[in-house]
Amino acid sequence: MNNACELLDLAAVCAYLKKQDNLLVLTHASPDGDTLGSAYALKLGLQKLGKRVQVICCDEIPHKYDYFMFDDGCDFVPEAVVAVDVADIKLLGDIYAQFEGKIDLNIDHHISNTMYAKRLYLDPTAAACAECIFEILTELRVELDKDIANALYTGISTDTGCFKYSNVTVRTHEIAAKLYKIGIDAAKINQAMFDTKSKNRLYMEKMVLDQAEFHFNDRCMLLTVTTEMQEKSGCTGSELEGVAVISRSVEGVLAGVSIKQVGPHKFKVSLRTYEPLDASEICKKLGGGGHRAAAGCTLEGSLSEVKTELLSVVGQALEECDAGSYTDK
Amino acid sequence: MNNACELLDLAAVCAYLKKQDNLLVLTHASPDGDTLGSAYALKLGLQKLGKRVQVICCDEIPHKYDYFMFDDGCDFVPEAVVAVDVADIKLLGDIYAQFEGKIDLNIDHHISNTMYAKRLYLDPTAAACAECIFEILTELRVELDKDIANALYTGISTDTGCFKYSNVTVRTHEIAAKLYKIGIDAAKINQAMFDTKSKNRLYMEKMVLDQAEFHFNDRCMLLTVTTEMQEKSGCTGSELEGVAVISRSVEGVLAGVSIKQVGPHKFKVSLRTYEPLDASEICKKLGGGGHRAAAGCTLEGSLSEVKTELLSVVGQALEECDAGSYTDK
Repeated sequence: MNNACELLDLAAVCAYLKKQDNLLVLTHASPDGDTLGSAYALKLGLQKLGKRVQVICCDEIPHKYDYFMFDDGCDFVPEAVVAVDVADIKLLGDIYAQFEGKIDLNIDHHISNTMYAKRLYLDPTAAACAECIFEILTELRVELDKDIANALYTGISTDTGCFKYSNVTVRTHEIAAKLYKIGIDAAKINQAMFDTKSKNRLYMEKMVLDQAEFHFNDRCMLLTVTTEMQEKSGCTGSELEGVAVISRSVEGVLAGVSIKQVGPHKFKVSLRTYEPLDASEICKKLGGGGHRAAAGCTLEGSLSEVKTELLSVVGQALEECDAGSYTDK
Repeated sequence: MNNACELLDLAAVCAYLKKQDNLLVLTHASPDGDTLGSAYALKLGLQKLGKRVQVICCDEIPHKYDYFMFDDGCDFVPEAVVAVDVADIKLLGDIYAQFEGKIDLNIDHHISNTMYAKRLYLDPTAAACAECIFEILTELRVELDKDIANALYTGISTDTGCFKYSNVTVRTHEIAAKLYKIGIDAAKINQAMFDTKSKNRLYMEKMVLDQAEFHFNDRCMLLTVTTEMQEKSGCTGSELEGVAVISRSVEGVLAGVSIKQVGPHKFKVSLRTYEPLDASEICKKLGGGGHRAAAGCTLEGSLSEVKTELLSVVGQALEECDAGSYTDK
């Protein structure tokens, strides 16, 4: 925690943004619908106020987000750097060192936020960072058009599993209703985000299911996507995502673990949990973080070492939950 | 179409319900979240007005709906018979003959409604029949409690694929927001409805994917669940549902067809389509019906005969859509 981090309320973050004319907006690496939807909605909204804004992401952005990716180059010198949906500066990816100590404003909804920026607008009750952006643009009296609304809806829809998860609130549906009034392409967006997979992806899912493991009386399901499976199926990049959702789909499973090999001895782990388990607590023990129902970490070692390490921490959490001591923490 | 069917508006349906003291509420066979959620919300709501209500379904009701299934027997003689979410009297299943000509009121949202009842409250703009029930209970000034709200939410959530499909409107989200305010168990409900499958089901899905067929330049995906696969996996009843969702999940697929064997020479077909295809139009040609994006029919013959019949009709629709004549119909 950085003591120099100033916490801003809605009025203060809006006052700060009003004063800036040239902004750089940063998303996290391996960009998802929320970080991108938030960044582009903020960009499009601030442009309506006459500001110049550029969005930067260290990774390639999947084409499925093309419908709100309005990029018009950067013909200005950025004066303020804003990170959206980035809980920890390291999540900026390869570019993080370049921005260390230089993030002027962080807009986020992760309770695990490390307060790395000079200013922070944090609303942990927001289901998506896009909810924060909606509030900010509304407070700034930006008239939301269809492009902005599509970007905001994408953030909200993707971060809530299409209004499915426990992070959804009254406000989430109220905002969705307002975005529908603007005339968003919700069904198309949801089709692209949730119901569109390639044939390669289908083939990979079959392989993943073939190797599914169950542990701790079927309360933990473990799925693995090895480099070999990635090559065999032809799946790359964002096509490899979403395996975590499968891992929490089986009856009785409290902890759904998915392991994706990202190097010879490096694995990205996604954890999805149901009450009373806390995915964020479990992943913190492994050097990661996230939300209560969805968190992640990166582990090094052989696949079997990584599995052992993971299962030990998950098993301990399940034991504590059996003993009734878990929820008291 | 029955000329004796009186179309009621919201005020008229409420006036009619107010006059009844003892009601029988019928759901469709193979009950889903919407017909059940609508029936039980109506029952619980009308009971709050001092009326006696019993719900009847010809099929066994899956346990996942237990949380709103408050049954207290029937110690009264029903005076009015109300069918909810039942577009055609035959959808009542085995009990339909017994009720032919005896349905006093039909509350529905299917544009394909056959007007078989004496009175019909039809709102084809409602994403779920539960939206109609919400409007009716609100108009009747029933104070919605958590049980009623859970039932209504279940109907809306299941009929919209959790707010994912094109039938969702501003009103759908506005109603959801109101139900959240009452304190529903939305995340738990969605987990039970969408993210909970048995290990048997997982095994069946693997088998289904192994035999997936693609036709018409991959614009049609065809999945089959044979009796043999049902036996091999151990899946029965409602565990066999939802294969249709997989059939429309692959990139470029406009028509997702799933065929479930229900007898030696009998198959239930589910069709899911994307624009410009109209599932309801296609299934009508095969003696079935439904909505624009989701419809069904029952076909008899050998599996290969049924496939040929289906593919011919789907192929024709795709040709018309290529020729640009499809949307003009």
